[in-house]
Formats: sequence, structure tokens, C-alpha cells
Amino acid sequence: MSSVKKVVLAYSGGLDTSVIVKWLQETYNCEVVTFTADIGQGEEVEPARAKAQAMGIKEIYIDDLREEFARDFVFPMFRANAIYEGEYLLGTSIARPLIAKRLIEIAKETGADAISHGATGKGNDQVRFELGAYALMPGVQVIAPWREWDLTSRETLMKYCEDHNIPVDFASSKKKSPYSMDANLLHISYEGGNLEDPWWEAEDPEMWRWTVSPEAAPDKPTYLVLTYEKGDIVAIDGQAMSPATVMEYLNKVAGENGVGRLDIVENRYVGMKSRGCYETPAGTVMMKAHRAIESLTLDREAAHLKDELMPKYANMVYNGYWWSPERKMLQAAIDESQKVVNGEVRVKLYKGSVTAVGRRSEDSLFDEKIATFEDDAGAYDQKDAAGFIKLNALRLRIAAGKGRDLK
Amino acid sequence: MSSVKKVVLAYSGGLDTSVIVKWLQETYNCEVVTFTADIGQGEEVEPARAKAQAMGIKEIYIDDLREEFARDFVFPMFRANAIYEGEYLLGTSIARPLIAKRLIEIAKETGADAISHGATGKGNDQVRFELGAYALMPGVQVIAPWREWDLTSRETLMKYCEDHNIPVDFASSKKKSPYSMDANLLHISYEGGNLEDPWWEAEDPEMWRWTVSPEAAPDKPTYLVLTYEKGDIVAIDGQAMSPATVMEYLNKVAGENGVGRLDIVENRYVGMKSRGCYETPAGTVMMKAHRAIESLTLDREAAHLKDELMPKYANMVYNGYWWSPERKMLQAAIDESQKVVNGEVRVKLYKGSVTAVGRRSEDSLFDEKIATFEDDAGAYDQKDAAGFIKLNALRLRIAAGKGRDLK
Amino acid sequence: MSSVKKVVLAYSGGLDTSVIVKWLQETYNCEVVTFTADIGQGEEVEPARAKAQAMGIKEIYIDDLREEFARDFVFPMFRANAIYEGEYLLGTSIARPLIAKRLIEIAKETGADAISHGATGKGNDQVRFELGAYALMPGVQVIAPWREWDLTSRETLMKYCEDHNIPVDFASSKKKSPYSMDANLLHISYEGGNLEDPWWEAEDPEMWRWTVSPEAAPDKPTYLVLTYEKGDIVAIDGQAMSPATVMEYLNKVAGENGVGRLDIVENRYVGMKSRGCYETPAGTVMMKAHRAIESLTLDREAAHLKDELMPKYANMVYNGYWWSPERKMLQAAIDESQKVVNGEVRVKLYKGSVTAVGRRSEDSLFDEKIATFEDDAGAYDQKDAAGFIKLNALRLRIAAGKGRDLK
Amino acid sequence: MSSVKKVVLAYSGGLDTSVIVKWLQETYNCEVVTFTADIGQGEEVEPARAKAQAMGIKEIYIDDLREEFARDFVFPMFRANAIYEGEYLLGTSIARPLIAKRLIEIAKETGADAISHGATGKGNDQVRFELGAYALMPGVQVIAPWREWDLTSRETLMKYCEDHNIPVDFASSKKKSPYSMDANLLHISYEGGNLEDPWWEAEDPEMWRWTVSPEAAPDKPTYLVLTYEKGDIVAIDGQAMSPATVMEYLNKVAGENGVGRLDIVENRYVGMKSRGCYETPAGTVMMKAHRAIESLTLDREAAHLKDELMPKYANMVYNGYWWSPERKMLQAAIDESQKVVNGEVRVKLYKGSVTAVGRRSEDSLFDEKIATFEDDAGAYDQKDAAGFIKLNALRLRIAAGKGRDLK
Repeated sequence: MSSVKKVVLAYSGGLDTSVIVKWLQETYNCEVVTFTADIGQGEEVEPARAKAQAMGIKEIYIDDLREEFARDFVFPMFRANAIYEGEYLLGTSIARPLIAKRLIEIAKETGADAISHGATGKGNDQVRFELGAYALMPGVQVIAPWREWDLTSRETLMKYCEDHNIPVDFASSKKKSPYSMDANLLHISYEGGNLEDPWWEAEDPEMWRWTVSPEAAPDKPTYLVLTYEKGDIVAIDGQAMSPATVMEYLNKVAGENGVGRLDIVENRYVGMKSRGCYETPAGTVMMKAHRAIESLTLDREAAHLKDELMPKYANMVYNGYWWSPERKMLQAAIDESQKVVNGEVRVKLYKGSVTAVGRRSEDSLFDEKIATFEDDAGAYDQKDAAGFIKLNALRLRIAAGKGRDLK
Repeated sequence: MSSVKKVVLAYSGGLDTSVIVKWLQETYNCEVVTFTADIGQGEEVEPARAKAQAMGIKEIYIDDLREEFARDFVFPMFRANAIYEGEYLLGTSIARPLIAKRLIEIAKETGADAISHGATGKGNDQVRFELGAYALMPGVQVIAPWREWDLTSRETLMKYCEDHNIPVDFASSKKKSPYSMDANLLHISYEGGNLEDPWWEAEDPEMWRWTVSPEAAPDKPTYLVLTYEKGDIVAIDGQAMSPATVMEYLNKVAGENGVGRLDIVENRYVGMKSRGCYETPAGTVMMKAHRAIESLTLDREAAHLKDELMPKYANMVYNGYWWSPERKMLQAAIDESQKVVNGEVRVKLYKGSVTAVGRRSEDSLFDEKIATFEDDAGAYDQKDAAGFIKLNALRLRIAAGKGRDLK
Repeated sequence: MSSVKKVVLAYSGGLDTSVIVKWLQETYNCEVVTFTADIGQGEEVEPARAKAQAMGIKEIYIDDLREEFARDFVFPMFRANAIYEGEYLLGTSIARPLIAKRLIEIAKETGADAISHGATGKGNDQVRFELGAYALMPGVQVIAPWREWDLTSRETLMKYCEDHNIPVDFASSKKKSPYSMDANLLHISYEGGNLEDPWWEAEDPEMWRWTVSPEAAPDKPTYLVLTYEKGDIVAIDGQAMSPATVMEYLNKVAGENGVGRLDIVENRYVGMKSRGCYETPAGTVMMKAHRAIESLTLDREAAHLKDELMPKYANMVYNGYWWSPERKMLQAAIDESQKVVNGEVRVKLYKGSVTAVGRRSEDSLFDEKIATFEDDAGAYDQKDAAGFIKLNALRLRIAAGKGRDLK
Repeated sequence: MSSVKKVVLAYSGGLDTSVIVKWLQETYNCEVVTFTADIGQGEEVEPARAKAQAMGIKEIYIDDLREEFARDFVFPMFRANAIYEGEYLLGTSIARPLIAKRLIEIAKETGADAISHGATGKGNDQVRFELGAYALMPGVQVIAPWREWDLTSRETLMKYCEDHNIPVDFASSKKKSPYSMDANLLHISYEGGNLEDPWWEAEDPEMWRWTVSPEAAPDKPTYLVLTYEKGDIVAIDGQAMSPATVMEYLNKVAGENGVGRLDIVENRYVGMKSRGCYETPAGTVMMKAHRAIESLTLDREAAHLKDELMPKYANMVYNGYWWSPERKMLQAAIDESQKVVNGEVRVKLYKGSVTAVGRRSEDSLFDEKIATFEDDAGAYDQKDAAGFIKLNALRLRIAAGKGRDLK
């Protein structure tokens, strides 16, 4: 066991991280700094202060990071249209590098030599936290209690609490969700419990929290107009909004319309498949709308290049390589493309689905005069197409002419 | 004008291609062979025979290509999860190489030296037809009347009919859709008319033909179980079906649930943006379900490789390079991956959306024992994760340790 | 034939472009502006002035573009390690966007509505010139005489000269190379003649001009130390040099050592294969050395990402899409990676080969303490590797454990 | 320490693996099976038998795997033109999956439950061995002594030999190379010693073993004609040869001409940079010649697709994922492309460089009639190029026409 002087813990105020506080104090005999962040998870963070104080913590950080999260993490990622494995909008993944960054900032401020987190040894989050921490403070020590201790069952954990006078809110504990959950401005996720059977339909009404079911959504659609500047939403229905406000507003409206539920089996970076359900109301709308505004304003080859780069980018985010040279390279390419992604998208939300029904922009590359089925007054010379096809076909004609079978 | 002896025309039996028959006979003074195919467009093809005969055509080909289309074109493409520009399921694109192939087969059978089609000089279809034709018969001549003649307005076309005694079904002509349409087993498309304004919501109830609106769909969801073998659907709700039957069945059921509408602006290969609406009921279900069965059975890196290759594959199909060495290379890679894509997916169709709610397979790589949040009895050693993270972080730690800024 | 008022011609002063001057004047009855650039082709450009004047040209542009060419075109391209089809260093390709840009600048200055060039209709250069011109002045007219006129043989061309009193320097014409050549600071190329037989060894001593044969090179190697800043060479053997000077110096020294000959069959954008020989002395050294300095300073994943992007980038340059959103996106990613590409590379030139024999940098990520085979004093914990391998193997072990054959 | 019954050891017969035999017997108290393979390393393998017997080994496997190595590993990899980080021909990497496969075959034959190897915990080879082993026998135990024991210095190792009566051939030990070496049919590698300073020129004449220095090579070039079938060399100078014979022959001839030396800094999968020197005489010739025969026979887009896939493929081989679904997918694509890669390449070897000076094939796609600078009798219509360029430029013209800056 390495010697640790002071450790900064990502502290939720919940039971698990409270146990970690005690365990760190006892096991490493070190000072613990707690860090609790509001990243839009929808729970009060201030109560964490009293709990931390009760355990003797002297340095307590409680930050509202919602705007930074939306502006510097979620929005840049949506410029990339990032989707992992064709489905997942990376809601958990994108919050981790921000937490890692803040943990390290606090470590430097408080002179701590270690950080700690409550992620298990089976998941992706440990990787994301720790890659971020190592990238920003290479000499930092990382303590991942779930990989070290033997409190691996509910019972041993409860026993530990009892032995160490950690107050357990049994009421809250009883009604505790059977699912492992994670929430932030972008999404809420569910894993475990019945979900471990991929054939089981995730129809548990107790599970979903941010969206109504499509069946329960209003019978009339809701329309919104989203205004984009450089690939980011800056206003809704004409009203300017900050990034976090955009997300809060969309979460509310889309959630009311049953938009944003997802149920998938995904491949974790640590090598196993896992079933997860996600609610990403705002993100689902943002993805659809961003594609729509790009469809009007982005050059074709820029758009196709983005599509080819996207899986790489999504992998980087999923696997925890936000703070890396390769992500910065891709971001530079993506951001270069977004200068012209300005304009408005009109979306329709209805019983679980979101549709882009209109898009317009002063940077539109849609040219009615050329695209029209009517007379285009010479804007496009159809005869050019013959040469275009002939030369594109030339390599195939030569090959076929020399007897090569292209079927 | 080059000399042509005999030309095979892709003949729908409609007004436009009837004019082309006459125009070819007159302009090139050549024999015309007509070819009409049932690829699931939902219209009788047999009436084309009488019409062709009436214009003096002696060699008339009418083929039912639905099974070949579904089996050899649509299904292989869906193994790739091919989507163009994040949205479009390539419904028009995938039918063209089949038509091109059949045109060339007929040209060879009948000793024709040319083929002809009714696609305009502004669109993608001319490219797809002609690339296919050149690849399969490099010396063939291609006659694209829309690029050559001066019948560029409705009026001149009507005048031509009058002058050449081509019967115009004015009843049908009057109720003619204002949209340019194309249909086959996979989809029906709409372009032109009001759609040329990308801000206009495509709410024209006269336009959509294969799907009800989500609002008009039943208030109760429909569930289906799809059985996959090697990446292809072979049965629905336990009933074995041929590829074309799968598609017809899914088109019906999904269409009744309002599933499969799409409204986008896309980038054509010839260089312009174009707005199109599509109904792809079966395809929308197939895409969702195929992703779901892959999520359970495909290895992570195989899946990610497919995701990286997909945009290239979709481009090849969209641009008309089906009969090409590069498409065959990608198909070989994709098909190699599909051997294990077997099992069942349960989908829910409800008011315009399709959700995969369950998936199971004897080839599943989902390992409950490892993935579980409960005690895994040693199936996975959480301590391994520390080394995994340490070495993945090593390059970043070295860089940061040498003072490099990774933020 | 469209109406043209004034045309800017890329004018070399040679016979072909002199004929074009006359042909443009006669055919389009328009004013001709000539533009002649020194891009390092190794021939005087000033004589073009008198020739142009003799044909009545009033606006004559003669520019020394060597520094701009090296700094803004060649150097950025070498940051990408761009190689086309595994071999070709893109010497011709990279000069075309600069010519196109300057043609358009002059057109705007002189109020011209057209540009013209002497590239044939079979090659890549017409594409590169014209894509560049259209991208920078979308309404410009392009006149490509070789695609229009009927002076397609040496005889008809000579007859035209005779008829129009264009002086033919028969002495120069006689000793004219049988090869089609193109030269600039980066390379000289040869096509045609005996080279049209790909089995013929390009051993013609009259052909190669910038390099001695490896056999004729000195028996002792030459060593150079190249200093890099942000991916560009800024000094040689400790002496600061401008980009063009770097290239001129390296061309001389490498050429004397037989370095830089290349003999390939390549695929043109217009669809045919073509055999070409190239001399790229400086470029060959720069490619090797840039890889070497990157090997020391670039992060692994940044380097691998560059390698994956490189073929796309090379294609863009080869095909003429320098002035395009997609090239700018890739350049942004590449340039982002080059901030740390600083340091020195020592290269050895010997009888046709160039070897990087040493590399050092203050931005080096090579960590002797970690890499050493000797005792590393704990810098690297070998036990971490076990976990790293275990988790990387997990997906394979699960698959194999479920009976999947991975052989 | 887990319980092991019987372990199969990759045994070279050298000192290190002899120590491992003893250490395994002593530490795990288990039976040891030795496996020694001739993969062309150039040393007798039979002496390993007596040494193993002397240590009490009862099951001794000595295999000549040269043909399998060349045919099933090296040749398929060269079809991909695989190069890691622009330079490295993957000589060490490609041998590991074969060793892993054979270790597992022997484990199954002998009822062993573990395998062991002598690779260190810092390198790539441990990863390659173990990923292969886990993929082929997921329950196997892997013992990597260098990660477990404390014999980390020369001294402790010698002490161990002394204590355990392991005979040390001091003569051989004294003249032992200061470099860590690895050899097989494809290459010999050197790491460590002076090479740990990347600025030090690797001019140690004692180091290089398979090639003469370019300076010492003959003053006259050597020419060879290589015959390809489906991407593989099947004859040299008209003489049919097996894969291993091809490689042995080329190693000899190329080595005599100083061809195949490489000196690089590379990025290891475990996260550090490392300097290595390599001699790959046959491989260097094969790479150049394969590119040349492909240049004549491969379709352009197939070739470009291969170039885009190559870095991924090289990564897979380098990182040890030979036995993986993703490598098999890429191999399927690559092999699909190689059906037409037939013909002959003439290469010139001279003082360290290899040049392809001629290539011919019945599957050539080079079309002199089209490519010629002379009159092509209408094989290619230059006017087609105008339309080709116009439509390729259309998206750029539209963008520029709407005021977008493409510079």
C-alpha cells in the first residue's frame, strides 16, 4: 500500500462515497478532501457539505459545473454528431473528463497527492476518471476503493457502516432503485437488476425518471425552433439561452413528449457486453437537429469526412480519452467545419419521436435554382453529367474490357 | 449522334418512358427492347406489355425481381447497417444496380448495343444506372434522353405525345402527384414540388402513401419477433419467410404503425443538395433490429470496424458503385462478420417509432456472470483494471510528465 | 462557344502555351493576360515577357512564388506525411492550387472573366487547375484548349505556328525531351515516350535531370542535421533557412547523392493508369526526416490518427481539392498535432538512399528510464501488463469460451 | 499463486528460457513441456532437445514451422502492404501468433493447463503471445516469469544458474551481443544497449548480421524477376519456389546488396517509445515489389481502400490481434482484392536500395491506348473531362457563389 498524504474524493454525499471517506481515512490514514459537483443530475449538492463535515472533512468543494459541462463538453461533442455503436449518446462518458479535471485542479490547490472515486472495477468510469487524472497530473496516485477493498456485497457494506457509525438513511435505502444509475444534464442511465437479461423488456415504470412513456405523452405534437451558431444551439423559439439552459429546457419539453429513451447492449472498454437503458431527452433532440442544420449548411465532403471520423471520436469519448492529443486533433477538424453551421431547425416532438420538419439558414448551400425539377434556366448543364459519368466509369470500363468480372 | 442498332430501355409503362420509346425509335432509328421489372413498387407491371406492343415493340421483358432484389441487394446492404449521411436508408440507390444488371443481361441476350433509361441529368440515378451498365458491358452505349432531348417542360412533352399519337391518360395525369416519386420493396421517395423549400413541413397527407401518420397510428403498440441467420431475417414471429416476404410483411405492419417516414436534405453525387422525403417502413425496422442482434453477437472490435467502414459502404451504394471491386471488398469483410449474427430480436412499433425491446441468441457474447453488478464469483478480477488503466495511460503520463499540456 | 472578354493564361513561354495565346486571341477574339510563375522549375521566367509582348500581350504577370509555394503548400503537405498510393510525393499536384489561386487573383485584378491553361484533357492537372479556379471564383469561365481544339498532333501544331508566324525554336525543339515533363521546387516529372511500356526500365540517362544515378553518386555518404519547428524544417546544419532555401539546398545535396528517383504506375483521377518517373530529392529527405522527428515527439495515437487520415489527405491533394472544406478540416487536425514536432534529425545520404540515423528533441517523449532493458528503478511496474493483457483479451476469451472459433 | 498442473513453455534452448524451465518446475511444482520452433531464425533448434532432456523434460516438441510461417502469416500480411508507423515491417509481431497457436495446440495435446514464455513485462511480445493464447484457449493460464520473479538483473540470473546447476556457456555468453535480438524468416531485430540513445547512429558493425552495409555491397546492381499469383510470390527468375524458400532466397540476395536495414523509434502497445533496428532483406524487396504488381493490376479504388485499411491492419498485427474477428474481416477484404494480383515485377537491388524497374501482367489494367500522349484514336474523349470537372466542382462553386471563403 503506497503512502498517501491527502486525497481528493469525488463525493456524491450518498452512502457509497460516505463509506469511501471513512475507508480512506482509516486505510490510508490520510486527509480527505471532498468534491461534489452539480452537473445537472437533478439532486441538491449542498447537503453533501454537512455530511462531509460530520465525517471530519475540512476541505470541502461544492461546485456548480452545469454551464461548463454543457458548453465545454456536451456542445463540442454534439458538433461531432458522436454516437457510440450506432445508438448511445455518451451521456455518462462525457461527464467524466470534467470531474477528472476538477479533481486534479483541487488536488493542485490543496496540495493533495491522490484522487479517489467510487466507480467499480468492472465499468468504464474508472477508466475515464483515471485516464483524465493521469493526463492532467501524471504523478497523481489513484485510489479506487472498489478495486481494493473487500466490501463487495451489500451486507459487508452495511456492516462497515454499522461498525463505523456511518448513518444509513434506511428509508431512502429501502426505496432505492434496483438499478445502478448515473445522471447529469445530458442523461440518466440504468444498469443492473432485471436489465441483466437482454430479452427482458425494460417496461418498469419505476425505472424511467426523466421521460414519460410514449404512450403517456400528449396526443398533440410540440414544435420547437432551435437557432444554431457555429454548430451550437444559442436560442429556442427565438429566446437566447445559455448552453445549460438549452439542455434543461429541452430535457423538460422532450421528456414530456416521451422523447429520449434508449435500451441497448453495449461493449464496454474493459471487454464485456453490458445492457443499459438511457434517457437523453435533450440530447436526442440535439442530435436530430444538428444533423438537420448541417444538412443545409455543410459541404458534402466535409459532412462525409465528419461521418467517417465520428466513430473514432465517439470511441475516444467512450473510452475516456477526452484529454488526449488525438481527441484534440479531431476536435480541431470538427470545429473547423462548424463555422458555417448557422441557422434554424424546426423540430416536432411527438410520443417518443423527434423529427426535423424544417431547416433554414443564411449559410444554406441548398440552391433551389439548381436542385429544381422545373426549368433551371441553365444553372446546371445536364450534358456535364455524361462526362462526369464517363470518367467515373472509366476504370470500371477498362477493367471490364480486359475481361475482369465485376459482378 | 452515334449509330445504335438496338437499345434496351428500362420501361415503366408510364408516360415518360413511353415517350422515350417513340423518341428512341425516331431519333436513333433503332429497334427498342423494353424491360419492365417488378421490384415491389406496388404497381402492376403486366400492363406495360400491351403498351409496348402498341408502340411496335417486339422484344418485351417483364420480370418479377422482388426476391432477387431483397436477397441479393437489400439484405447484403442491411448487413452493413448502411445509412447515408446519418439518415437515408438508400432505398432508391440499392435498386439501380439490379436494373443495370438486368438491362445488360437483356442486351446480351438480344444482341443490343445500347441501353436507355428515363433518369434526368440532375440526379443520382443516371449515374447508378450507367456506372452499373459500363461495369458489366464496357462497350455498351448509353442513351439518356433527358440529357439529350429538348422536351424539358410538361408542355413540350405533351405536344410530342400529341404529334406522335402517344395516348395520354389524362385522368391519371390530372391526379398525378406533384412530387417526383420512386418506389420499390424498400421504399417510396418524394422530391420536388413544395419540398423544394426545406423549411416547408412535409405535412401533405396526399403525399405519404405507405405509412399512416404517427398521429393516425393505433394507440396500442405492435410487437414482432424477428429471427436472424447470418445477419438476415429468416422468420417473423416464428414463421419462416423469404426475403421479399419479410419486406412485404414488415412494410405492411410498420406502415400501419406510422413507422418509416423520413424528411431530409441530402447531398447528391452530382454536386447539389436536394430535399427528399422517404417512406421506408420495413427498412426502418430492419436497421434497428439488425443493430440489436449485432449488439449481442458481434465482437466489439468487429462492430467498431463495421461502424468505421459503413460510411464508405453507404457512399459506394449511394454513388452507384455497387458493381465495383471496392464494394466487393467491403462486402467480403462485412459478410465475414455476419456468420455469428444469429438469434432473435423483439421490436415494438408505436406511433412512428420502433424500439428493440429484447434480444437473445445462442451466439450471444453477453456474459451475465461477468457483467453482473452482483458477486461474479471471480469471473472477472477487478484488480486487472488497474494495470489496464495504468498502461493505457502510460503515454499520456509520460507526455504530461515532460510538461506537455493535454487540456 | 461562350463569349469571353478577357482571359488569364498560365503561360510558360514555351511553344505550346504560345500557340494557346494566339489560339485564344483568334478563337475567342478576347484579350489575353499572361501569367508566368517561378515555382522553382529551374528555368528563367523573365524571357516569357518578351515573348508575350511580341504577341501583343499588354498585361503580363511574372511572379516569383517560390517562398509562397514552399511555405504555404509544400511544407503543410509534408506535415501530413502525404504519399499517394504508397509511393508518390505529389510534386505536380501540390503546385496546381497555387497557380489556380494566382490566376484567379490576376483575373480579379485585371477584370478578366476567364482563365486558361495548357493541360491536356487526359491528365490530372486540368482537374486541379479548374477545381481551384471554380472554388475561388465560381463564375469564372475556364478555357482548356487541349480539350477544344483540333491541334492534336505535332504536325498540326507546327502547321498552326507556321500559319500564324509563331517562332519555333527548332534547335530547342530538336533536343526536346521525348518525355512530357513538369518541374517545380519539389520535383521534376517524366511521362510518355518509352515510359508507356511499364516493363521498360527507365534507365535513359538523358531523362533524369536533377539527380545523378545511385551508381554515379559519391562513394562516401553525406550527413545533414535538419532542425524542425512545428513540423517544418527551419535550419540545416545549424544554419537558418527559409522554406524555399531549405528545398533548394536539399535538392542540390540529395540530388548529388542520387536520392529521390521514383518510377511508378499510378492511378489518375480521370480513371486511367499512367506510368511516371519522378525526381524529388528534397522531398524524399524531408519525408524520411519528418517521420523521424515525429517518431520522437508525437504521441502514439496522434501519430496513428495521422497515418489513418493520410491517404485521404493525399487523395485530396492528388485530385485537386486543396481549396476545399475537407482539406482544411484535415489540415486543422494535422497542424494541431505539429505544435510539438520540434527538434533535430540527422540523416545520411548515400547512393540513392536516405536514412535517419539520429533524432533528438526537447519535446521528446522517448523516456530512457522507462524503455530501458536495464533496471528502471520502478518507473514501470511490469505487473501492470498482466491486467492490461487480461482486459484486452477479455472479449476474445468470452467469445472463445462460448465456442467461437477465432482461427 | 494459482495451481498449475502442466505448462507448455516456448523454449529457445538459450540461457533465459533454461532458467525459466527450472524456475517453473520449482515455483509451480508442475510438469514442463518444451516447445522449440524453427521459424527461420537461423539457429539450429535440435540442440534444444538435449538441453531440455538434461533438465528432466519428458515432453519435448521441436517443429520446423518455416513454411507455415511464410505461407499463412508473412504472405497474407504482405498482401496488405502492412507497415507500422510508416516504417516497420512487423517482423517480430507476425511470428507471435504462430507461436501462440502452436503452444495452445501442444497444450491441448499434452493436457497442459498453462503456457509460459520468456518475454518481458515491458514489451509487445508478452501481449501478442497472451492475446493469441487466450483467444485460442480461453481458460488457459499464462505464466510470464519476467513479470513475476525477482531475477531482474544479470547478476541475480547468474546466481540462480549457479544455485541450480544450470550450465552457462560463458564463451557464448561473453561474445553475447549487447543488444536484445529476435530473429525469424522475416527479420532480425536489435534493441537496447547503445540504441537507447536515439541520437546515436547505429553504425556498430558487430550489430548488423544479415545485411552488409550499403558501402560494402557490390558496385554492380542485382536484378531479379518476381512472379506473383494472387498477391504472393511463387517464383523468382522463373524458378518456382515455396513461400519459405522465396524468403530465404530473397534474404540472401537482398542482404548481400545491403538492402533491408531500418533504424526507428516506435510506439509500443504498452505505452512507451522504444528504439529498434531491424534487418528485413526479403521483406523490403517484397513490399516494394508487391506495391509494383498491385500498381498494374489493382483497380484504383480497391488500392485506395487498401491504403486506408492498412494502418488498422498493421496495428492489429503489431498489437497482437492476429487471432481476432477484426483481423479476419480485414483479411477477407484484402484477399478479395488479390485475386487479380498476378504478373511479374523486375527489381533492382543496389547498395541498400531496392527499386521496381519493370512490371507486367496479363491482368494489367494499364491501357496504353488510353494513357498515351499520342493520338489515341478516340479511346478517350477529352471533352468528357469538362463535365467531370464541372460536376466535381459544383458543390465548391455553389459554396463560393454563396460567399463562402474556401481559401
